[in-house]
Amino acid sequence: MKLKAAILQTKVFQDKERNIRQVEEILASGRTQDADLVTLPEMFSCPYETGNFPLYAEPEGGPSWQALSALAKKFGVYLSAGSMPEAETAGRPGKEQGADAVPPAEEGKAAGAAGPGGDTVTRIYNTAYVFDRQGRQIGKHRKAHLFDIAVEGGQHFRESDTLTAGDRIGCFDTEFGKAGLCICYDLRFPETARLMAQDGAKIILVPAAFNMTTGPAHWELMFRQRAVESQCYVIGTAPARDPESAYISWAHSIAVDPWGTVLTQMDEKAGIRIAELDLDYLEQVRRELPLLAHRRTDLYELRRK
Amino acid sequence: MKLKAAILQTKVFQDKERNIRQVEEILASGRTQDADLVTLPEMFSCPYETGNFPLYAEPEGGPSWQALSALAKKFGVYLSAGSMPEAETAGRPGKEQGADAVPPAEEGKAAGAAGPGGDTVTRIYNTAYVFDRQGRQIGKHRKAHLFDIAVEGGQHFRESDTLTAGDRIGCFDTEFGKAGLCICYDLRFPETARLMAQDGAKIILVPAAFNMTTGPAHWELMFRQRAVESQCYVIGTAPARDPESAYISWAHSIAVDPWGTVLTQMDEKAGIRIAELDLDYLEQVRRELPLLAHRRTDLYELRRK
Repeated sequence: MKLKAAILQTKVFQDKERNIRQVEEILASGRTQDADLVTLPEMFSCPYETGNFPLYAEPEGGPSWQALSALAKKFGVYLSAGSMPEAETAGRPGKEQGADAVPPAEEGKAAGAAGPGGDTVTRIYNTAYVFDRQGRQIGKHRKAHLFDIAVEGGQHFRESDTLTAGDRIGCFDTEFGKAGLCICYDLRFPETARLMAQDGAKIILVPAAFNMTTGPAHWELMFRQRAVESQCYVIGTAPARDPESAYISWAHSIAVDPWGTVLTQMDEKAGIRIAELDLDYLEQVRRELPLLAHRRTDLYELRRK
Repeated sequence: MKLKAAILQTKVFQDKERNIRQVEEILASGRTQDADLVTLPEMFSCPYETGNFPLYAEPEGGPSWQALSALAKKFGVYLSAGSMPEAETAGRPGKEQGADAVPPAEEGKAAGAAGPGGDTVTRIYNTAYVFDRQGRQIGKHRKAHLFDIAVEGGQHFRESDTLTAGDRIGCFDTEFGKAGLCICYDLRFPETARLMAQDGAKIILVPAAFNMTTGPAHWELMFRQRAVESQCYVIGTAPARDPESAYISWAHSIAVDPWGTVLTQMDEKAGIRIAELDLDYLEQVRRELPLLAHRRTDLYELRRK
């Protein structure tokens, strides 16, 4: 069984709606061929700045969500709709599956800002959605590890200034088997991919945006090793590089097979790449080098709390 | 604080004692400079074949162990004495720290063979020892993940034909801080390095021997990613390549820093490389990109059983 994925490394415009229109234009152009799955970058509709997250945030089911759901249905594809800032409003608690009870908002995190419809926005998340061919939401992930970094002479960034971290790492079902969904920094933590592999994931989707410090150092390395150790196909979808932006994306969207072979990797420019994920080959790799079967689950255990 | 490591990528001779003499000659030659730590390869004194393991095996404290302990003391170095087959005899249960009660021997695993001194050898392990500058054993690891692989048109090998797996993953203390010790295939499992990092490891020592299938595909990748995610120095020490041997070593002994930079990597030939491990730089990396501090230990837990 084979899955054809179209990876969209798009440019991020200030105009939120223009980013959605851009996706529609690409889907309508035929450039994604007959892809089963279309993937979008982290924060594909919101220039990646902590100050922007509250301004661009929408609740689950908001206008951007609606438009993306409609695109999945119209083109009959699985749509990994990148990530976008999600506003959780007071009167409307999030519908995150399996999430624990939501704790009170922390001070200074957009608390009290007026949300759409006059509700009080209590929290902003970096949230990834996945829609099926009928436009139904089948996957949702709120970035669980927030990216706070301060490299000497390199990258400084603090997502936690305006974002709240999610409380769940999980998978969703597709006609091609189980898939995991996480965002960028989440994948640096071996626990993330490991939990997904334990759940039975065969594909891991990662909207992501490394930068000019971490990108050359760790991007390809991380995706390849996670694919090898998890014996999964892993796709990282990043925004195209914009040297004028506050946070400069390394780009280099990538798809890796379960042996660690890079199926495709882009450069820094906007573009589209097709990657074919062969699920039979995945089973072959798992038979020949049975890394998942060889885990010493009698000695150690990774579990959710 | 800096630690100077000398990595010895040695040729493995059929004559067990010759392999030990070779180490002594190198230490006496001055080629390891003023190294604090000297590392030897996996199965450095036993050609890597499942049939050899029972023939070359010695108990802990046996002649090879004694000779290596004496070398550590004579040259005043920490000696990561590679790995060698360890015979556990019936009257003399292993002294592995913290190991669980030993289960009965499985059929067909050298059970009933006559061990040194006439004791009955019940099990053979692939065991790594570490000695301190006084020649005291401070670290011991029995390979916990046995390497059984059958790649179509590539490598076939079954350690489990003659070896028993160890039951413990752990660290030991040095004047440079805590160090983890595991063997080759153990490091493919993210749980191994993670448990060590949780224990406080800053250095991970890995006697190892990838082959001509897995080496080009996964060797450098694995060492680099484990170093990055664990924020540790990781040293992999392999036997030099011998095209005449049954199992052909990829060699390429390697030292990686906590940012994932390869400090040194050898080719396939026998040789010695010096790597300087800067523990202050390790602390800097952990401050600037606090991957260990950013683990979501409120969401997941990796624990020993």
